[in-house]
Amino acid sequence: MITLNVDLDERGYPIFIGRALLGRSEELLAEKIVSKQVVIVTNETIAPLYLDEVVAKLKAFDVETIVLPDGEQFKTLDTVMQIFDALVSRKFGRKVTLIALGGGVVGDMTGFAAACYQRGVPFIQIPTTLLSQVDSSVGGKTGVNHPQGKNMIGAFHQPKAVLIDTDVLNTLDSRQFSAGLAEVIKYGLIRDASFFSWLEENIGLINQKESEILAETIERCCQSKADIVEEDEHEGGVRALLNLGHTFGHAIEAGEGYGEYLHGEAVSIGICMAADLSSRMGWLSRDDVERITSLLKKAMLPIVPPSTMKREQFMRLMAGDKKNVDGQLRLVLMRKIGDAVVTDQFDSNALKETLDSYGRE
Amino acid sequence: MITLNVDLDERGYPIFIGRALLGRSEELLAEKIVSKQVVIVTNETIAPLYLDEVVAKLKAFDVETIVLPDGEQFKTLDTVMQIFDALVSRKFGRKVTLIALGGGVVGDMTGFAAACYQRGVPFIQIPTTLLSQVDSSVGGKTGVNHPQGKNMIGAFHQPKAVLIDTDVLNTLDSRQFSAGLAEVIKYGLIRDASFFSWLEENIGLINQKESEILAETIERCCQSKADIVEEDEHEGGVRALLNLGHTFGHAIEAGEGYGEYLHGEAVSIGICMAADLSSRMGWLSRDDVERITSLLKKAMLPIVPPSTMKREQFMRLMAGDKKNVDGQLRLVLMRKIGDAVVTDQFDSNALKETLDSYGRE
Repeated sequence: MITLNVDLDERGYPIFIGRALLGRSEELLAEKIVSKQVVIVTNETIAPLYLDEVVAKLKAFDVETIVLPDGEQFKTLDTVMQIFDALVSRKFGRKVTLIALGGGVVGDMTGFAAACYQRGVPFIQIPTTLLSQVDSSVGGKTGVNHPQGKNMIGAFHQPKAVLIDTDVLNTLDSRQFSAGLAEVIKYGLIRDASFFSWLEENIGLINQKESEILAETIERCCQSKADIVEEDEHEGGVRALLNLGHTFGHAIEAGEGYGEYLHGEAVSIGICMAADLSSRMGWLSRDDVERITSLLKKAMLPIVPPSTMKREQFMRLMAGDKKNVDGQLRLVLMRKIGDAVVTDQFDSNALKETLDSYGRE
Repeated sequence: MITLNVDLDERGYPIFIGRALLGRSEELLAEKIVSKQVVIVTNETIAPLYLDEVVAKLKAFDVETIVLPDGEQFKTLDTVMQIFDALVSRKFGRKVTLIALGGGVVGDMTGFAAACYQRGVPFIQIPTTLLSQVDSSVGGKTGVNHPQGKNMIGAFHQPKAVLIDTDVLNTLDSRQFSAGLAEVIKYGLIRDASFFSWLEENIGLINQKESEILAETIERCCQSKADIVEEDEHEGGVRALLNLGHTFGHAIEAGEGYGEYLHGEAVSIGICMAADLSSRMGWLSRDDVERITSLLKKAMLPIVPPSTMKREQFMRLMAGDKKNVDGQLRLVLMRKIGDAVVTDQFDSNALKETLDSYGRE
């Protein structure tokens, strides 16, 4: 097992990464739990696989469980209200600890419920998908979707610990696994060209879930995420780079209906669209664009937008993006692999061309 | 005009108190507004009285307005969702400033919407009731009620400024005005015996809304609140004293149905019940109890619980109180006027007697 630390003073916390860590839940987490009251929030897919094991390990506590439906379409204020209902009806107090056992949707909603229940209670992340292990479980972004916009309602609320058991990826279906790789590749693109090259060399072994390579992948991503969050907890600057591909991606998720595309799939397409636009503006070479789309394809990810979504719909949905200032669209673009920037200084004609033409031929 | 400051480092802010300040909204608030986008949230009672004036003063900004229904029964997640709907549909960004123009319900919901919209946007409080001017607009507690518990869902989110125009109290109905006095009297009881005596001397002039006396009342309460919040922003200690009367009071609000009793009315009854219990335990003298109930009566406030609410219902509703730890009820009690404590070391038989007997003869 290795331990990384997110250094945010009194809000700092450890990330434990290794094999068979679910079986060590009590040993690793007990000191992070401040009262007897523990509520594990999970979903219908994860509950039959891992819930009993975690509950059994936390037998020193009074553990209650909440099982939510599975899927991005349930990442709503209504579902979070179900968590509040359960907490209130069981009279849980301000020192209850919530544990998110699941992927990004469970983690985001549990974290948001923890941020808001009685104005804030502690929570712990036990991410069970590659995407949540490498990205969403670290950094304290929590929230739910609004019908017109992804993650529009939420809070910054850091977990007390993140426990990443790499063995759970063995039960992850291949589509979910690929979706996680979109965020993995993103880290290489935004500021770590050597990691991108390493991924190009190792994508075959990663696809086979070779355990050493997978552990290294997760560790490098978590370290990168921790560094960025330490530098810019509330996304005033560099943290916005983590949104590479997300402006286009969120538009696809909302436009096609939440749950139709997995978040990582939409991000993969969004990365390709950002690369295409960056290239049309003369920033990114055609060679780099080719390397990017090629690696995403090898990760079994989609790289072209849904044919049903036209430019006007993209523009309308992107107009509400959280990075925008005073109505001005801002995008994460690439100057080269490993060098991304957030900018509102893009060529709007080039953007039109990307939206009209990329992946449409 | 006087200006108090809540000193919380980068989250600190001014409280402006004086006459005719609505007319100086732009002068006082402009530098606190970070983009052109401003949304004023108010309710159906306040909108016809003051909304046009504030909008007119902020003509340098792009001002939108949201008018909510009036009443504690609307302080729900559903109503906050209406604010989110309006913000999302108008594509407001992360630098939009929300302004709460109204009483505690509008302030709590607008603040909570600001805490959660895009994970946090700035907001400003313009409180229009005595209760919100002396208490709820200062200190950053925001939130909504759950059907089973008051303020169960919320966030700590400090405003960028609080603008208190004492002239608006001239249009406040007498029941609302009295409700505010319950919180005023609370400040004297928890740690300022001389303020309590001052209130006893001046309650007549206060009831007549004599402007100098009223201004001094508001200033002393805001100063007291600011001191407490600076000492204990997230209610780890002394801030819990501000809940004097609230454990019983919240039970009355929930038990009778939100909106039936005004918050301050329920707090008034709760203060009397806390005084009765403190007296039964030998902490508070009968003389002090008499002084407390007498002052609340002079403030035209109710002092006995609804006859429909019995001990069992109180106990059930209080079991979910936010101050409780591991299921143990905690109460704010008084050793004497001006000296309150938060404790779980109360006599449970005395509590039963208070719930069975106080105000029942």
